[in-house]
Amino acid sequence: MELQDIKSPKDIKGLNFQELEHIASQMREAVLNRTSQIGGHVGPNLGAVETIIGMHYVFDAPIDKLVYDVSHQAFPHKMLTGRVDGYLYRQDFSKVGEYTSPVESPEYDIFWAGHTSPALSLCVGLAKARDLKKDNYNVVALVGDGALSGGEAFEGLDAGGALNSNLICIINDNQMAIAEDHGGIYKHLEHLRETNGTASDNLFKAFNWEYLYVAEGNNVQKVIEALQKVKNSKKPTVIHINTQKGEGYTPAEEYREAFHYRDPYDIATGDLLVVNEGPNSTTVLKNFINRSVKKYPTFLAISSATPDSFGLNAKEREMLGEHYIDVGIAEQTGVAVMAGAGRGGAKVVYSVVGTFLQRAYDQLIEDWAMDPSPALMVVAETGIAANKDQTHLGFWDIPMITSIPDIIYLAPANLEEFDSMLEWGLSQDKYKVAVRQPVYTTEHADYEVDKDYSDLNKFKVLKEGKDVAIIGVGDFLIKARKVVDILATKGINATLINPRFISGVDTELLGNLNKQHKIVVTIEDGSIEGGFGQRVASTLGTSGLKVLNFGVEKKFVDRYKLSELEQANHLLPEQIVDMILSNL
Amino acid sequence: MELQDIKSPKDIKGLNFQELEHIASQMREAVLNRTSQIGGHVGPNLGAVETIIGMHYVFDAPIDKLVYDVSHQAFPHKMLTGRVDGYLYRQDFSKVGEYTSPVESPEYDIFWAGHTSPALSLCVGLAKARDLKKDNYNVVALVGDGALSGGEAFEGLDAGGALNSNLICIINDNQMAIAEDHGGIYKHLEHLRETNGTASDNLFKAFNWEYLYVAEGNNVQKVIEALQKVKNSKKPTVIHINTQKGEGYTPAEEYREAFHYRDPYDIATGDLLVVNEGPNSTTVLKNFINRSVKKYPTFLAISSATPDSFGLNAKEREMLGEHYIDVGIAEQTGVAVMAGAGRGGAKVVYSVVGTFLQRAYDQLIEDWAMDPSPALMVVAETGIAANKDQTHLGFWDIPMITSIPDIIYLAPANLEEFDSMLEWGLSQDKYKVAVRQPVYTTEHADYEVDKDYSDLNKFKVLKEGKDVAIIGVGDFLIKARKVVDILATKGINATLINPRFISGVDTELLGNLNKQHKIVVTIEDGSIEGGFGQRVASTLGTSGLKVLNFGVEKKFVDRYKLSELEQANHLLPEQIVDMILSNL
Repeated sequence: MELQDIKSPKDIKGLNFQELEHIASQMREAVLNRTSQIGGHVGPNLGAVETIIGMHYVFDAPIDKLVYDVSHQAFPHKMLTGRVDGYLYRQDFSKVGEYTSPVESPEYDIFWAGHTSPALSLCVGLAKARDLKKDNYNVVALVGDGALSGGEAFEGLDAGGALNSNLICIINDNQMAIAEDHGGIYKHLEHLRETNGTASDNLFKAFNWEYLYVAEGNNVQKVIEALQKVKNSKKPTVIHINTQKGEGYTPAEEYREAFHYRDPYDIATGDLLVVNEGPNSTTVLKNFINRSVKKYPTFLAISSATPDSFGLNAKEREMLGEHYIDVGIAEQTGVAVMAGAGRGGAKVVYSVVGTFLQRAYDQLIEDWAMDPSPALMVVAETGIAANKDQTHLGFWDIPMITSIPDIIYLAPANLEEFDSMLEWGLSQDKYKVAVRQPVYTTEHADYEVDKDYSDLNKFKVLKEGKDVAIIGVGDFLIKARKVVDILATKGINATLINPRFISGVDTELLGNLNKQHKIVVTIEDGSIEGGFGQRVASTLGTSGLKVLNFGVEKKFVDRYKLSELEQANHLLPEQIVDMILSNL
Repeated sequence: MELQDIKSPKDIKGLNFQELEHIASQMREAVLNRTSQIGGHVGPNLGAVETIIGMHYVFDAPIDKLVYDVSHQAFPHKMLTGRVDGYLYRQDFSKVGEYTSPVESPEYDIFWAGHTSPALSLCVGLAKARDLKKDNYNVVALVGDGALSGGEAFEGLDAGGALNSNLICIINDNQMAIAEDHGGIYKHLEHLRETNGTASDNLFKAFNWEYLYVAEGNNVQKVIEALQKVKNSKKPTVIHINTQKGEGYTPAEEYREAFHYRDPYDIATGDLLVVNEGPNSTTVLKNFINRSVKKYPTFLAISSATPDSFGLNAKEREMLGEHYIDVGIAEQTGVAVMAGAGRGGAKVVYSVVGTFLQRAYDQLIEDWAMDPSPALMVVAETGIAANKDQTHLGFWDIPMITSIPDIIYLAPANLEEFDSMLEWGLSQDKYKVAVRQPVYTTEHADYEVDKDYSDLNKFKVLKEGKDVAIIGVGDFLIKARKVVDILATKGINATLINPRFISGVDTELLGNLNKQHKIVVTIEDGSIEGGFGQRVASTLGTSGLKVLNFGVEKKFVDRYKLSELEQANHLLPEQIVDMILSNL
């Protein structure tokens, strides 16, 4: 049996261990084949090959339900469930997504599950439904050690521990999150590995689960024998499997953080095919961190397991010493530590990926916004040019953050403004400041950037015109400029405004627009609903001015082409101009 | 020393154990004195008296930082920090809030902390700031056993366990959340209590904390001796204190759930002074649950530790048997279990308090909205008439939920519509449906309520008029009606619209309004920013119609009077009419 011939999990049921190892080896080649050409998760998938072969060998999907937490390690699962072409043939790559997807495979992919830590809680729900329907299948979650630090995973362990029914949790312990693990439990997992699972104070038993340890998690025979022991168990059971991230590919074994997710690379050397050397917002942030740690004795940089957002490699993080803390995959705690350290008088900056910050909406309100805890939060990977997987869209941060009182959300339009907002946000001791890191553009400023943003909600007019006022939010100022330029060719001298503030509107400036203008246009890099533009529309509701809001429709989209998304949402400058002209 | 003479924690430092017991006894009387007259948290405060006396006796606030998780047990703390009058004298009750507040006491109340589970993570931040400043004080968190099931608490244990520094966590184990505890760890806590803290698989040690057990947590001497042992410790340390919820007041010891929070009552008997017998939305929900469990074999009702939202007492919950699950204080998991059970084919209803649902924003998006997981969620205690503490405001659920694609958010205007939306939401198998439980009104419908809501975003015109169209959202339809009535007295025949849907707008209906109307008015029971009205304003941005949005300003307010809040936000019908007239 060759990998390319596998159409469904049934095809591996009759194979012996040697044949399964052959399949495992071909799977590794397929992972490298795809990721080296179009990028993707390398290390997580290489490490989980034997575990996932074991799952499909022992359990009977789709009757048994296999749920992948975060699912960036689900390539082997997809290869065994009719989607192997997506890893073998370039022309088929785009047919298969990075994460599990009930749209791609309603039978085998139970949930999208692109964020870490939900699998156990989702499985408690599946198990309850199964029991109510008097069905009899296994419910199995595959959870990485990194995902264990997320609050929902602990909640799921707790809720699962109270179930008196079949629920199997496979912990894929590759000793890494995206970067190294952080948190008290990781010393404990180390003790468990060192003692072949016999260390005292067993975390999983404390949550009322049965526990089994598998030392050789990249040995398909050992994995299968262990899974066979727990199949059809009637109690919540953890199988803790020790695996190696990047197993079988030397560069990925050696540089585990760099090969967690890798842009296209040369398989022979592991080197990236394209290296971006130019200045971008990450280099601005990194330089800001390195300046600030020298400037402020109480400086503290916080990460929740995404240190790459700071642009800092392992060595650079080590150099920050006590001025750097990684709380693990735990954004709730990231926000709370930011708030607590700010309250305690430290100079704090927390860098967090926008889509993951969704996990800390309550903490933004309750732990930060209402407390006297000045701090600076940098929101990374926002807008339409960031991650294009449905599970990681950067569309919702503006509605989320700007619905909260007392958080100043700033949108820099270029690298200098980003730098300036970071400097101000950290230097001041009064406000809770969030800055939206620009992704769509790496433009430089062609106007003098302000150093002080304490005059809240003050919009900046970059060009005074009449009839039409264009407000370009943050990294979409570049679009607003293009609209103004095109309008100029049609004899319309439009006003250009950089609002800088997304969390409030400049009511005075807006109130004065109707003297010389007929239409106000907002263009923002995110969801229209609940966003900046709708605030402007509401503010101008009785002004007599027309308002046109541009942004992204409230809708899930997956692996889109940027230009197609822009077109579908009327975000191309020509489209915006057409809409303006038809309303003039 | 008498309680009334205590001005600061210093005043108890010299007392002996007998004198401290006298203070403890007076504190209990003071808790009853206040709560019996104006309502409040009874059981949590009675149980924590000795623990908090011990904290202030052993530690030196405000140098040492005492952080109260959820802080509904902080009355004894307030009595010892200059605010005892707020418990002794009726005229001073309103000067002291239910929760800790840095506005009320910037010195002694470090955070607001009205939601459960943040204290440990906040304390990690405080401890980091202390260490960076080379300060030397103790950082102490008081956390209830119920709060331990919340994801942020586990994250905080995990992050704290990685700190090599002073951090003290007092677990106040009164064996209860609001109702009974749920989750795997509670069996473990029981083992620890039964073995005087020596049971194997110690949860806290697994998180890398030192551990100490105190069996007699309502004995002030024992508590003090234990706290003295850990003061100035240089490692993260848990002190697990066994207390009794409601200690010292028989009705509260006996009816622990009913006395968690109690409306005004007779101290002698514990009986409520006023019993609301009339129909309200909770009785509608309760009847719906009791009907549904008979109708659907796979029916599942989910609670995250607020079973009172269903209106079900302990006995009624028990009668639901396998059709009821409480996941503990764990909204992330509440949403995921709802999604998982919906995906598994069960008929699911999850009742959740709006302010606590904030903790599951990410799960609403990632675990529910994008998956094929039909289910019904009931959002309780929303709007301006619900909880008036700053930490528990019902203002943000509309911006939060309606920013998410593919969740249908319905706003019933009266009890019959609520019932009908519940019925439809559970019967259908296609949509993710959330229903906003009405609080502001207990009106009955005076029109025929629809049974089917699958014609999405279809607004209902209740009265056709011209010039002015009033859209009253959900339980604010009652305000819209009053506005229409007042306008009629001024010769204006306004249109009245019940939108029913908050998560989308009826573009066709809105598009046709400009034929006969000049102004469209929206009135909603929540924050304007990111809300329903701003969507309407945006939709009508180029229509030529004026739009007026009414709702609550994006602002934290604490313990407000309803009428004053309404006036300040121009929500009184007369104020709305004035604004309309001045724009006609």
